[in-house]
Amino acid sequence: MTRVALLGFGTVGSAVACRLLDANRANPLNSYELTHVLDRSADRKRLAFDPHAKIVWTTRIDDILQSDADIVIETLGGLEPASDWIRQALLHGKSVVTANKQVVARDGAALWSLAARQGRQFRFEAAVGGAMPIVRAIGDGLAGDRLTRIVAILNGTTNAVLSTMDDGVPLRAALDEARRKGFAEADPSADLDGDDARAKLAILCALAFGLRVDALDIPVRSAADVTAADLAEARRVGATIRQVAHAEYDYSSSTLNAWVAPVAVPRDSIFGRSKGPENVAVITGEHAGDVAISGAGAGGGPTAVAIISDVAAIARDRAAIVPPPVLTTEFSIRHQFACNPSGVFAPVLAEAV
Amino acid sequence: MTRVALLGFGTVGSAVACRLLDANRANPLNSYELTHVLDRSADRKRLAFDPHAKIVWTTRIDDILQSDADIVIETLGGLEPASDWIRQALLHGKSVVTANKQVVARDGAALWSLAARQGRQFRFEAAVGGAMPIVRAIGDGLAGDRLTRIVAILNGTTNAVLSTMDDGVPLRAALDEARRKGFAEADPSADLDGDDARAKLAILCALAFGLRVDALDIPVRSAADVTAADLAEARRVGATIRQVAHAEYDYSSSTLNAWVAPVAVPRDSIFGRSKGPENVAVITGEHAGDVAISGAGAGGGPTAVAIISDVAAIARDRAAIVPPPVLTTEFSIRHQFACNPSGVFAPVLAEAV
Repeated sequence: MTRVALLGFGTVGSAVACRLLDANRANPLNSYELTHVLDRSADRKRLAFDPHAKIVWTTRIDDILQSDADIVIETLGGLEPASDWIRQALLHGKSVVTANKQVVARDGAALWSLAARQGRQFRFEAAVGGAMPIVRAIGDGLAGDRLTRIVAILNGTTNAVLSTMDDGVPLRAALDEARRKGFAEADPSADLDGDDARAKLAILCALAFGLRVDALDIPVRSAADVTAADLAEARRVGATIRQVAHAEYDYSSSTLNAWVAPVAVPRDSIFGRSKGPENVAVITGEHAGDVAISGAGAGGGPTAVAIISDVAAIARDRAAIVPPPVLTTEFSIRHQFACNPSGVFAPVLAEAV
Repeated sequence: MTRVALLGFGTVGSAVACRLLDANRANPLNSYELTHVLDRSADRKRLAFDPHAKIVWTTRIDDILQSDADIVIETLGGLEPASDWIRQALLHGKSVVTANKQVVARDGAALWSLAARQGRQFRFEAAVGGAMPIVRAIGDGLAGDRLTRIVAILNGTTNAVLSTMDDGVPLRAALDEARRKGFAEADPSADLDGDDARAKLAILCALAFGLRVDALDIPVRSAADVTAADLAEARRVGATIRQVAHAEYDYSSSTLNAWVAPVAVPRDSIFGRSKGPENVAVITGEHAGDVAISGAGAGGGPTAVAIISDVAAIARDRAAIVPPPVLTTEFSIRHQFACNPSGVFAPVLAEAV
């Protein structure tokens, strides 16, 4: 029996809670026990969820830290207090699973070193790519290669908006539709501007190239400026526009070329064919060539799958040693877009598969 | 320092050896030592490889079993002696990494139970999908979901042949081209007939659905019978022909619908767009929806990446417990093709993404 505590009971947190209880019903022998839920509105949400479940609802982090939970799942979002609470949980001997890309991008190196020192695990599959298991693909499945490039769609909200705009819907209406479907926040600026995608890209650069990248050093160009005219122009040349996150590392010169921007991609490429909140990544290795992966990039269900998979990996072997990646800061970032700075989308992304 | 022994020094084995030595040069601190190579032509291959390397070359399995190697990599192919030698290696306290789909499909359940009893690991990412990390995606990254369907191209040779035939090349010439490029064996019948793909599909059914499937119970139809006329007919309806492996499990009735056959797929689907020796899989989960993954399915380099990634996972934590999957035989297989039995490729595969 693995005892699990949950920080945050929003869309993702409540999906995780339901999935944990489902997993117990499906397989009572190898089960998880949801012991604690921390949420600002603990009292109200407890009544709405299942007042009879044997769960301690609280608003105080100390109740979690002092509990006998083995694993703390963080779905609060935002940098603080999430990052501090994750650190506290590790210091109190708990393993941590998080969906928080901002925390992993900024504090990941410190947190996974702390986890290793504590003999605990810090896992974050849900922080990048939703249900598409890209953290494992890069950090584990392709660990035997030397990776050189990642080209990806990492923000489901922006992809949903751009693919809806491509059907002739104006930006504002496309955003409304994404909100109705639960793909967009009330304030989607971090999505459209590229802040969300560059945090995820910084995480992938650590895993793939062993680089400690400050996400703020990755240049972005906002997708909020893409117009119907841009899309029409792209269509004229057999392309469409997608927010692409691009990172390529040249080991010989220790130079990283990384950016997030709306670029033109061929309509029939894996990027152009990606619709709605889907995420896609093409990972290139010296020996493996191109490996592509795609899946739902947003939504409670897909994100919960990534979180529960991390919980299962920890439950399977709580004593497993997950050594922190060795990261270097001895590299430079080229502050240069591959796309033409004067146009939103020219030229067509050459790497598009 | 992790000590590694290699069984078999063909295309894959020699690629693994080169990559292990490369990895040492790149990072002398966290390195692998290739201590033993077993090959029928050990004397000749030793001279061709690197006669100065401190490697014991042998033709006798006892030299491997009695050695102090931590990990045995099996790249012999074929059922015996490979399966027996893997069992012996586990009994002698070694972890095993294999690329051998026939062994994993037939004896996987016994071998991973044995590995767990021995406190050792048995890993086989290279047995399915080449460089595409599908074993981890299903067994680990999507472990938090309940998977219901796998639709995949799992045989690189057949895919290379069918995609070349689609350009107007006859079967025999397409096979010759695949052989020249190193994608096809002298005798490709196991590839074209579907034997190779159904062994891989049986492995995926164990990982995804927890079913102990005898590969021979999965119906196959040979791709060797596909004609230029079939391809022309497919083209007429916007499709092409691919060897597809399909498995769908209905949990409520414990019924598996599994088959391998050449079927028509839309030209612009992920399957129709797969060219050459590429492998592709679309994995469907109840909560994650569709997750797609693709990559090079054949060749020494990509296969070596999968093997070295498994070696790295074991080296990272030799004490890790990898519990064997719980498999059931309490299910039935529907002996029925989804495609029309009277035509090679009709109707178009509905699930094609």
